[in-house]
Amino acid sequence: MTVLDIIEKKKNKQELTKEEIGYFIKGFTDGTIPDYQMSALLMAILLNGMTDRETFEMTDAMLHSGDIVDMSALGGTVVDKHSTGGIGDSTTLALAPILACCDVFVAKMSGRGLGFTGGTIDKLESIPGFDTALSEQEFFDVVKRVGCAVIGQTANLAPADKKIYALRDVTGTVNSIPLICASIMSKKLASGSDTILLDVKYGSGAFMPDPESALELATKMVNIGTLAGKKIGALITDMQQPLSDHVGNSLEIIGIIDVLHGKKNRLYYEIREVALRLLTLTGKYTLQSAERAFDEAIDSGRALDKFAEMVQAQHGDASYILHPEKFRLGTRDAVVAQRDGYVTQMVAADIGRAVTHLGGGRMTKSDSIDFSVGVIMHVAIGSKVNKGDVLCEVYHNGKGLSEAKKLICDAITIDNDKPAQHKIAYAYVSKDGVEMY
Amino acid sequence: MTVLDIIEKKKNKQELTKEEIGYFIKGFTDGTIPDYQMSALLMAILLNGMTDRETFEMTDAMLHSGDIVDMSALGGTVVDKHSTGGIGDSTTLALAPILACCDVFVAKMSGRGLGFTGGTIDKLESIPGFDTALSEQEFFDVVKRVGCAVIGQTANLAPADKKIYALRDVTGTVNSIPLICASIMSKKLASGSDTILLDVKYGSGAFMPDPESALELATKMVNIGTLAGKKIGALITDMQQPLSDHVGNSLEIIGIIDVLHGKKNRLYYEIREVALRLLTLTGKYTLQSAERAFDEAIDSGRALDKFAEMVQAQHGDASYILHPEKFRLGTRDAVVAQRDGYVTQMVAADIGRAVTHLGGGRMTKSDSIDFSVGVIMHVAIGSKVNKGDVLCEVYHNGKGLSEAKKLICDAITIDNDKPAQHKIAYAYVSKDGVEMY
Repeated sequence: MTVLDIIEKKKNKQELTKEEIGYFIKGFTDGTIPDYQMSALLMAILLNGMTDRETFEMTDAMLHSGDIVDMSALGGTVVDKHSTGGIGDSTTLALAPILACCDVFVAKMSGRGLGFTGGTIDKLESIPGFDTALSEQEFFDVVKRVGCAVIGQTANLAPADKKIYALRDVTGTVNSIPLICASIMSKKLASGSDTILLDVKYGSGAFMPDPESALELATKMVNIGTLAGKKIGALITDMQQPLSDHVGNSLEIIGIIDVLHGKKNRLYYEIREVALRLLTLTGKYTLQSAERAFDEAIDSGRALDKFAEMVQAQHGDASYILHPEKFRLGTRDAVVAQRDGYVTQMVAADIGRAVTHLGGGRMTKSDSIDFSVGVIMHVAIGSKVNKGDVLCEVYHNGKGLSEAKKLICDAITIDNDKPAQHKIAYAYVSKDGVEMY
Repeated sequence: MTVLDIIEKKKNKQELTKEEIGYFIKGFTDGTIPDYQMSALLMAILLNGMTDRETFEMTDAMLHSGDIVDMSALGGTVVDKHSTGGIGDSTTLALAPILACCDVFVAKMSGRGLGFTGGTIDKLESIPGFDTALSEQEFFDVVKRVGCAVIGQTANLAPADKKIYALRDVTGTVNSIPLICASIMSKKLASGSDTILLDVKYGSGAFMPDPESALELATKMVNIGTLAGKKIGALITDMQQPLSDHVGNSLEIIGIIDVLHGKKNRLYYEIREVALRLLTLTGKYTLQSAERAFDEAIDSGRALDKFAEMVQAQHGDASYILHPEKFRLGTRDAVVAQRDGYVTQMVAADIGRAVTHLGGGRMTKSDSIDFSVGVIMHVAIGSKVNKGDVLCEVYHNGKGLSEAKKLICDAITIDNDKPAQHKIAYAYVSKDGVEMY
């Protein structure tokens, strides 16, 4: 077997065997297959596709290229939620304590932000002292004791994915459903949870431009997870506008604290939807008992306390959670409406780019982050505004303010006619099929 | 403009502009675009195709990546013939002196053999003293004085092609009609002739498996050459069996001397067909006057003398041309028929491989060649044979004899029913359209 034979097969739209897929994943990861052959193969896969069986075998080969975390010692249900990335997506920060209040474990390894998307790890580090680099043992101890913990990825999970993704990024081979699917699922299956909820975004600033292609991707990922023996479901959600009113690092922690206090905004409803789906997936809850458990966790204040408890267990200053006014923010400025009308469009990716311009995100992996900058949106798609109304507050420290304000201004379209209502979710997929919203 | 934008366009089946094509050819040639991006783009081109305009622009960009030979100082018609490669294809060696006898110049730069195909330059070097590395000035002087000369490629013709071909060879991106077309035509247009005859082979041991795809490739190349202002035509010819009865280096020179003596075998008829087409293309001949000129060159012995004259002008020992028995050959052995019947198949590529096993070809570029080995076929497709008849003589020096005999034995199929007659040519294409044989 040679990689040329494999390229030839895929070029001619033939199905690759388990052995052939294993051969090129191993060969590329260990460096015996060079970049230029792998990129030709990736382009052939992108253009000629992969069957579900091939996608499963590719996921499996990538999964086995590194460590597989074993969480069985926790002795309980371990849940995980994965978002395909977006703007103002801080759901993990609320879900971890809420779910821990519902007697399931959340042992989450998260990423840092790059480009216009924020990273959960960066947001947590805006809490003074918070340690996202616990040792594996301490991480397990916190999960066992508190019920939840969130750290950066330490284990060597799916190193094949890391290498392949870097190549896809520079060869125009990112937007392939089988390749996205294998990339996400190899890491998820390696991370050791038994119940997984995927949040597949569509819209500006997401991998998938429209709900139909997001549903196709979600369905394939659910099939692979089910084949691998996981309890798995996927929500298809709208990333046309930022998920949270708060975009930025400290600001998103403040937004999450609002939700844990029971503030019923768009972020709250999405978090509730994800939590109910996850709890039901575990098999320990019906939809009704999940709703009761969720509402009780928020209304009693237990979820907020749990968040503070997790922050403290990870060496952070928990007083910031109970007194969010302690977060230092930048100087306040505002973007105002230039005309009367309805907000009909809000390009999420450009809001993300604006925050990056202010210093709140990274352009390259080595950039440092200013936690105190960001944006608080005062409007959403469908809001009625009058000329001069504040569309959003901008918190800055001088850097990139005019570029950021211009980006935000251009990102928000105000028009005469009220737009159709945006639903939070478009569909839910599990092994039982597709449920439309 | 970035190479990623260009990959994205081709991936989405959009037509590339002249500027985009020029950008990636230049960037890859000068090393600013890395292999792994070029191979992704080449695969996208292979799978999504190129329009005739894109293929022309790519040819043009590759042509201008190096020197363009100027032959105008010769003050006459300069013709060139290009074969897409095959086994026992020594037509150039006879065409050069025959055409020189017909008052056109042949200033030919040829290649060496690699793998199972032989190279014109290697064959000529089997004549003691023959110099295939004349200086540019001496080359022009010989052409001007004798009418023809054949040397190895000295000028820096289409270096972009050399680099792209090396990458295509290892990334499964060889068999793309636009890429083959740009590769051949960029070199042909750079070599300075005004009249070009392409000999596009199909069958085992050729780029194109069937006559239909060979015709498609030929049509595109003729269109590009015509657009570039050349007089150009293409013959689609059969490479199901070796073109010459003689395969090997010294042996092919001997076979050519037979043709120049007027021996009317398959090679003779193909050479005549190519010569008549070329002479007619120049506009200096009608078909009738071309036939007269060709026959006169052979019958008078002038073509043979011209070959000896060219050999002498290139410092070779011309006595070998007049006394081919002087060529030292290996020890003679034979492959005999295992049964009675008709020869129905003869896999040309395997005959070529057999000669390479004997030491008559190269597996890698640095291998040296044994000029004295090879094969003389005694049969062709359609021959009637009895068990024990000699199918071919094998000349060897001990090396690889049993592998070679086995390859030849397996390459020749003998069956009960007489096969259909193989025509030498399938079609001829010029700017005036397609003529079927």
